[in-house]
Amino acid sequence: MTSSFNPPVRRLMGPGPSDVHPRVLGALARPTIGHLDPEFSRMMEEIKDLLRYAFRTKNSLTIPVSGPGSVGMETCFVNLIEAGDTVIVCQNGAFGGRMKENVERCGATAVMVMDGWGKPVDIEKVGDVLKANPGAKAVAFVHAETSTGVQSDAAAICALAQEHGALSIVDAVTSLGGTPVLTDEWGADAVYSGSQKCLSCMPGISPVTISDKAADVVRSRNHKVQSWFMDLNLVMGYWSGEGARVYHHTAPINPLYAIHEALVMLQEEGLEEAWARHAAMHTALRAGIEAMGLSFIVDEDCRLPQLNTIAVPEGVDEAAVRGALLTRYNLEIGAGLGDLAGKVWRVGLMGQSATGEHVTLFLSAIEDALAEQGAAINAGAALPAARAILG
Amino acid sequence: MTSSFNPPVRRLMGPGPSDVHPRVLGALARPTIGHLDPEFSRMMEEIKDLLRYAFRTKNSLTIPVSGPGSVGMETCFVNLIEAGDTVIVCQNGAFGGRMKENVERCGATAVMVMDGWGKPVDIEKVGDVLKANPGAKAVAFVHAETSTGVQSDAAAICALAQEHGALSIVDAVTSLGGTPVLTDEWGADAVYSGSQKCLSCMPGISPVTISDKAADVVRSRNHKVQSWFMDLNLVMGYWSGEGARVYHHTAPINPLYAIHEALVMLQEEGLEEAWARHAAMHTALRAGIEAMGLSFIVDEDCRLPQLNTIAVPEGVDEAAVRGALLTRYNLEIGAGLGDLAGKVWRVGLMGQSATGEHVTLFLSAIEDALAEQGAAINAGAALPAARAILG
Repeated sequence: MTSSFNPPVRRLMGPGPSDVHPRVLGALARPTIGHLDPEFSRMMEEIKDLLRYAFRTKNSLTIPVSGPGSVGMETCFVNLIEAGDTVIVCQNGAFGGRMKENVERCGATAVMVMDGWGKPVDIEKVGDVLKANPGAKAVAFVHAETSTGVQSDAAAICALAQEHGALSIVDAVTSLGGTPVLTDEWGADAVYSGSQKCLSCMPGISPVTISDKAADVVRSRNHKVQSWFMDLNLVMGYWSGEGARVYHHTAPINPLYAIHEALVMLQEEGLEEAWARHAAMHTALRAGIEAMGLSFIVDEDCRLPQLNTIAVPEGVDEAAVRGALLTRYNLEIGAGLGDLAGKVWRVGLMGQSATGEHVTLFLSAIEDALAEQGAAINAGAALPAARAILG
Repeated sequence: MTSSFNPPVRRLMGPGPSDVHPRVLGALARPTIGHLDPEFSRMMEEIKDLLRYAFRTKNSLTIPVSGPGSVGMETCFVNLIEAGDTVIVCQNGAFGGRMKENVERCGATAVMVMDGWGKPVDIEKVGDVLKANPGAKAVAFVHAETSTGVQSDAAAICALAQEHGALSIVDAVTSLGGTPVLTDEWGADAVYSGSQKCLSCMPGISPVTISDKAADVVRSRNHKVQSWFMDLNLVMGYWSGEGARVYHHTAPINPLYAIHEALVMLQEEGLEEAWARHAAMHTALRAGIEAMGLSFIVDEDCRLPQLNTIAVPEGVDEAAVRGALLTRYNLEIGAGLGDLAGKVWRVGLMGQSATGEHVTLFLSAIEDALAEQGAAINAGAALPAARAILG
């Protein structure tokens, strides 16, 4: 006989999920109702409005897709791209590579703009590639690269795309709610995110917003979307508006209660206040990290405050440090991915994990674990430095 | 400012979701941990074992797909079917039509075996179509048609498929946990289900099991699976086994706690005991319905105990009855779909909604609502008839 599962109580400071607030867990556990219940329909309208607030958009087609961030990504690609299209894909980490996979599985051609892991997308190169590919259907890029901690200049890339008559597809999985995602101001055509990063909901829901222009592209496709589940022409029928909903798939009721509550909390705090909090917590973390003698791999002007990639000092067993943090402190941080595997730790300060408590817990814990490995650090310097910022 | 959402407390007796037990809601609200946490990995192994128990299979590739039942369906089709394949699709309701959509969006040809809404799949016709299409890659059918309340003979259809060297793809969304789903005994190659029916978990997770033979087909495809998210070659890397997990997408942590708990409860009750309970509750409901003078649209020998399609008496406004049940009794039942729209109610006795309390609540409530409309029913006969069975 299998017993009930009782998870340990962790502090989540990896690349997501981040800590989920008890209010959101409480919402998640409210009684399940039907996906066509009039009360549920009313809540769906509220979610759409709250997402428009978070995305800074007036886009009518703004919904929580029933799946993790990778479903949000795939939803954007399979709806906007058709076989034979050319898509310019900017890759400067793991998730640009996933975009390429998406483009190719649509039968389209991906023209790559490659930048190093830990570097932002090079705007000049994007301009050059757009000039060289005049018929390109879209430019796709990652605003906040979860694999490296880099933020790219979304405004500039969306502007370039627009100039060349291409759609823009933006991965804002790690940025939404943490750093400015200005959908309408950028003129972005498709932006997707995840629930488990700066929104601090559990994973499994992917907020997506589509511009009116892009929605028209979806409606006037030559061929059916290759995915029945992700076909926005059908999904729109369910999310279209109160009273007129057409059954498509069964919505994940309770997870939608949770994203609703997480967005209500974001609205209560205020979007700009949330951005400021993420920035302030990064400043405190940085003070501690640098005082200790550690360093970031990403330049300050393009560094994500909510995802900190810290270089593993020479001679240190990075996995042993993560293991010690998990075992002794119930503290999760992330390993490096791809080109950065073994070279960095990824430390998230996202949503509910962007607090002074998290910053100081992490600094004490990593100092403890590094000291044990005999790493050359400035013992005792980190906490006072962070405390000076946190007050 | 938007407020927190507090749903009404409903009794869910529609076509799903069914009532979710407080133990499952409690599990859902446990603290979120990371998708690569060793404790989470341990629980994933337990879920796989529990699903094998529910599916009556030894299939190694048995997992909860991160999405609602329609993602489970699409996962089976996009992995097993390639452009140019021929697939025999049996349609006797709404979900066979969705299978056809899936086949065609894979670039394959669907050869249809059509039966009426409310009738089971005609085995003889399947045999004939298999003979007429010797190279068919697969036979796909719905074991338990949620749109009509019909169960088809899965053993016979899977045997026919095997005889003709075709794979079998089985929709067991509404049957798993309610009526026998005998994956290995049938020799079924791909079976998918949903969390929100007889397993009584909230919607959003789709249990899927794939035979070793079918898993080999996935591994030796000519072209990549058109969906990156659903590509089992990648998903398998994450669900492969403790210790060796490769990140693919971020698993929906809390919903997986919930399906784990729902499956633990199924194991505690016993699968055969759960089947017997669903059958017994249908018998009680039937006694009440027939005593009242109402009737089922599906013949008894192929009627699903867990999904009862009851004919709307002439002159009765079916939507008004559903509205009255929802408003006065907080009781949800389902409307008819497709060919049956306006003609039937769909009354679920699934999972936690398959209890004597549900049967008697529904009988009293529908009698009340029908009396109000002046329908010709035998007043006062239903409850004693049901009570005679329930004891």
